[in-house]
Parts: sequence; structure tokens; C-alpha cells
Amino acid sequence: MSTAASRRRPATIHDVAREAGVSRGTVSRVLNGGHYVSPAAKAAVDAAIRRTGYVVNRHARSLITGKSDSVAFLLTEPQERFFEDPNFNVLLRACTQALADRDIPLILMIAGTEDERRRNLRYIEAGHVDGVLLVSSHSGDPVVARLHEAGVPVVACGKPLGQTTRIGYVAADDRDGAREMVRHLYATGRRRIATVTGPLDTPGGVERLAGYRETLAECGLPADEDLVVTGDYSRASGAEAARTLLARAPDTDAVFVASDLMAQGVLDALARTGRRVPEDIAVGGFDDSPAALSSQPPLTTIRQPWDRISAEMVRTLLARIAGEDPATVILPTELVVRDSA
Amino acid sequence: MSTAASRRRPATIHDVAREAGVSRGTVSRVLNGGHYVSPAAKAAVDAAIRRTGYVVNRHARSLITGKSDSVAFLLTEPQERFFEDPNFNVLLRACTQALADRDIPLILMIAGTEDERRRNLRYIEAGHVDGVLLVSSHSGDPVVARLHEAGVPVVACGKPLGQTTRIGYVAADDRDGAREMVRHLYATGRRRIATVTGPLDTPGGVERLAGYRETLAECGLPADEDLVVTGDYSRASGAEAARTLLARAPDTDAVFVASDLMAQGVLDALARTGRRVPEDIAVGGFDDSPAALSSQPPLTTIRQPWDRISAEMVRTLLARIAGEDPATVILPTELVVRDSA
Repeated sequence: MSTAASRRRPATIHDVAREAGVSRGTVSRVLNGGHYVSPAAKAAVDAAIRRTGYVVNRHARSLITGKSDSVAFLLTEPQERFFEDPNFNVLLRACTQALADRDIPLILMIAGTEDERRRNLRYIEAGHVDGVLLVSSHSGDPVVARLHEAGVPVVACGKPLGQTTRIGYVAADDRDGAREMVRHLYATGRRRIATVTGPLDTPGGVERLAGYRETLAECGLPADEDLVVTGDYSRASGAEAARTLLARAPDTDAVFVASDLMAQGVLDALARTGRRVPEDIAVGGFDDSPAALSSQPPLTTIRQPWDRISAEMVRTLLARIAGEDPATVILPTELVVRDSA
Repeated sequence: MSTAASRRRPATIHDVAREAGVSRGTVSRVLNGGHYVSPAAKAAVDAAIRRTGYVVNRHARSLITGKSDSVAFLLTEPQERFFEDPNFNVLLRACTQALADRDIPLILMIAGTEDERRRNLRYIEAGHVDGVLLVSSHSGDPVVARLHEAGVPVVACGKPLGQTTRIGYVAADDRDGAREMVRHLYATGRRRIATVTGPLDTPGGVERLAGYRETLAECGLPADEDLVVTGDYSRASGAEAARTLLARAPDTDAVFVASDLMAQGVLDALARTGRRVPEDIAVGGFDDSPAALSSQPPLTTIRQPWDRISAEMVRTLLARIAGEDPATVILPTELVVRDSA
């Protein structure tokens, strides 16, 4: 019947309003994201749209609202990292939920290569999303400047390094979290405390290393560059870093690793050398991602407040879309003590 | 300078053409997906767009082309499954690549709940993508009918079960693949061959079970329902199924498992009971996903031709978008013999 109706002549927004028993304005608000519409009215309109076979005319709609009522989750990392690092799973779910509370769909884009960035930016700049949740750790990422130039509202996860343009971001207090972990390692009697950092063009890499160094000085421990090895946040790079570290400084009695996934790699490598964790060497992670619980032994780590980070990213992005100035939100971390340190 | 220029007055498509030294038509083709444009010309236009600070006017553009020059990869499964099952990683990468060859961006949408489906359908029906690569295994999925009603071109991965509407799909030959695996188990001397099926409202669940039953009959083995246990494609469900199976039929000497991830779960459970694979019990998987190689022992499995499946999904979807009728493509599988059977 609906298809028959739509075959006679295309259903209009008026047909939908009549069918749903609501005003044309209510239908329009549902079509434009359902803001300020009761769940009941929304359900009635959705049902009426199906019954009448009404198809949204996006040109008319865009011309009316100029909005797509959607937000992109843009990840400028290779797809492999997306699947390997459980942090992305957690962050994506939390952002999806925060947007769902406002009935806004999340559009996921993975742009690990320059070509993918160009294609995704073309799509974004064409106005198919109202704003971007940018998940990109590396500094000098051209995407930030491109989005800013195109006037696309954007909020970054983590501080965008080396950006001349001012954009909003939400981040955990990386430096303070690192300090707390190193203090914990020191308090439990460790004196040869090494670190495996993230890439040094990422805020997590730079800030967590800074926190490590500050705390060594604060504890009166010598700064020894043999104890600092850099990874790329992958599990494999953690194992590689641990091997390098043990070759350079076999007397290392603790390692602060800048991500749980790298910490799993460190544990892999230590197990192969027969070193016991934490008896021979303590291992502290960062993130409190699912990797922390699945590792053997379960990781003592620094919890990033992913739910709050996501909620603040969504809140500040919607504020940007509504015309507010960029905001910076720094959230506290928390030490979670398990078995590895 | 570009920003200064764009501040004086917004750059137009003519400015871009002049700056790039190409015709306005070439710029327009680049803006509309870059089809029939040389890489060199495309690069020149992209550079000119950046230099002039030109911002695409999506209303004008949509009115001209009525197209978004993008394709959605719509997964109607919970996000957890997306991250747990390596098949999705492989399929997503291959689809992204097949689209990249045509310079078309892939828009990823995860719709595991009814609310997420409603939001994503609203976005799709509003015309923000030209077509949908539907990755949804369960039958009676309302999304198929909704997309069809809305006139959105769609190609499914795997046969959509219980659909009255005719839609195109691309699938591996599930039944034949199952036959090949069971024949292999029989040929290696197994006589109590069990199976762990996928959900029976999925084509992989139904077809692989049918292939299993046909081959038992063909080999003159009795059909014993104790040897048939159903899982949900998750690793945990595979372990659960193996425990059920061993309780019912401790003399089982082989198991054909309808997915590599479930087969990993079966191996987990068998290891706990001290049964040796393949000496005491042979285990055959399905997919040849990364899970097959990471499992202990490496899995003998049935390879799904993901690259060809993805290439055919993209090819037939673009044909649908161009107005061709729905197409069905069935691709052959391949037995990969490793250590588990």
C-alpha cells in the first residue's frame, strides 16, 4: 500500500505529517535530527515515513537546514592499528554512545594514507557531516589544518602537536598520569626505572616521557638515556623495546610503558628471557585498556577516563557546530594497581 | 596568500580551473569523484583547491550531480563482533582498496542496535552515500527491505536470507566449501565427524551445515544429531560448543567448525581436556582468516576469497548505482591444509 501510494505520486512531508498525526514542523525536526521531539512523536513520524514511502529530498533539506545531523569519527591511523589497539574500540563505542544520546549517527572514516585522507576530506568538505571527532596522534597531521581551512568544526582526541591553528581538544592528563606511575614504581622500592615511550611526535609520547623524567629527578634518581626506548604503540614494538632495554641495562628493575598494548609486548619479551614479573622486574602500563586485563600478569596501569573523554569530545564538538569557540578539556587519570607492579 | 585571497572573496570553481591550468569541466569531474581525470590533472586541481581556499558548495554540487560519490560499508552487527572477528578487518580493507582504485571513499557505519539502524538509515536515505555494501549475516534483517524501499542501491555480502525483495549479493560457495572440508576429514580416516555451525539464520550457518550433512550421507556415515552443535561465530561460543559436543559424544574424532574464530574456541576447550589436535581429534575451520594462522596448531581451513568477494561487491554495487539490475556472484572456496586436520 505504501509503495502503491508512492507509485501514484511521491509522498510529501505533508503526507507524512497527516499519516503521523503531527505538525509539518515536527516531521521536519525529526528529519533534521529529531532534536526537541518526543520519542513518541519521533516513532510516529518514522512509522509514517515507512508507510508513506516518503524519501527525504536532501537538496531541499540541505538548503533548509544546511546541516547533515551527523558527526564523523575520523581516524588518521592505518586500519591495522585500529583493529590491533583496543583503545580505539573503547573510544569508538563511547563516542557512538554519547552521540546516540542525542540521536546523532556516527560516521566512521579511516584515513591511514595520504590518498585516504584526500578522499575523506573531500567527502567531509562537501558537507556530508557537520563536524569531526579527530582521532590522530601524530603531529603535523595535515588533516587538522585542512579541516580548519575548510571551516569544518573539529575536536581532537589528545593535544594536536605542532599546529599553528587553534583547535579544540580533549585529553587525559598524560604527564600527571606518568608521574603517578613512576612514583608508584619508586614507592615499591624500584631504583632502575626504565621507560618505553610512544612515538615522540605524539602528545602521549612526549608528555608521558616528560612526566617520567620529572619524577626521576624528584626522587633523586639519575637520568640515564640507556633506560629510555621509544616504541610505536604496537605490541611488537613493545617486545622489541624490551629486548633493546635488557641488552643496554640488564639491571633494570622496573619499566613504565606508555601504552598497555606495548606493555603486553614487553611482558612477551620478558617471559622469553625467564624474568619474573613483578619479582624481577615491575611493568607499569598506560590506558587501562582491555589489554591490561587480558595480559599475564594483569597490568598495573594508568586509567584513561575514556567515557568522560568521549562525552567531552562530543559535547565540545556540538558546541563548536553551534558556533562556540574551541575548548580544551584536560581530564585526570587514575592509578590502577594489579599484579605487574 | 591563499587564505588572503579567499578572504577577499570566496574562490570559485573558475579560480580553481585557472590556478590549475585546466578546464572548468575537469575541476568539476575532480570534485565529483575524479572519474575520467588523469592523476596529474587531479593532483593539479587538488593543489589549486588548497591554494585558492576553494570550498565546495555542496548544494550547488548535489543539485548538479545528485551524487555523493561515496559508498557506505554498513555492518549490522554489534561493534564487539566487528573488533573480535578478523574477517571484518580483512573484508573492510579489501573493500576500501577496491573503492580506492576508483578514488571513492568508504564510509563505515556500525549498526548493531535498532536505534543505530534507524539513525544510519536516516543518514543513508538522506542521500549522503550513493550505495551500500551491506555486511549483515542474519536473516529477516529489516535493513535490507528498508534500503530497497528507499531505492538505495545495495549489494550484500552473503545471501540475504528470508528476503522477499530481490537484492544483489556476493558470496563464497559455502556449501561446496563445507563438502570439501568434510571429505578431507573422511579421507584422513575420521569416522565420527561432528560440526559446530554458525547461527542458523545466517547463510554460512545453513549452507555449511547442509554441505556437512550431504557429505556424511555421500560417505555412508550415519546422521547423528548429537554431533551437531550451533555457535554464534564468536570464539567463546566455539569453546562452549566443544564442551557440549564432548559431553554428548566423547568418541568424536573430528570437528568441522563453521568459522576460524569459533575453531580457535574449540581448540581452547580441547586443550583444557588434554585432547591432542590432530592426533586425538581433527579440527577443520572455515574462512582462512588471520585467526587460522594465529591458532595453535595452525588451522586446516576453507579459504574464502575475500579479495575477489570485495572486488565483486564493489563492481556490482557501482553497476547498480549506474542503473544495472541486481547481480548474484558465487565464488569458489579452497581447502587449505595446515596442522589441525
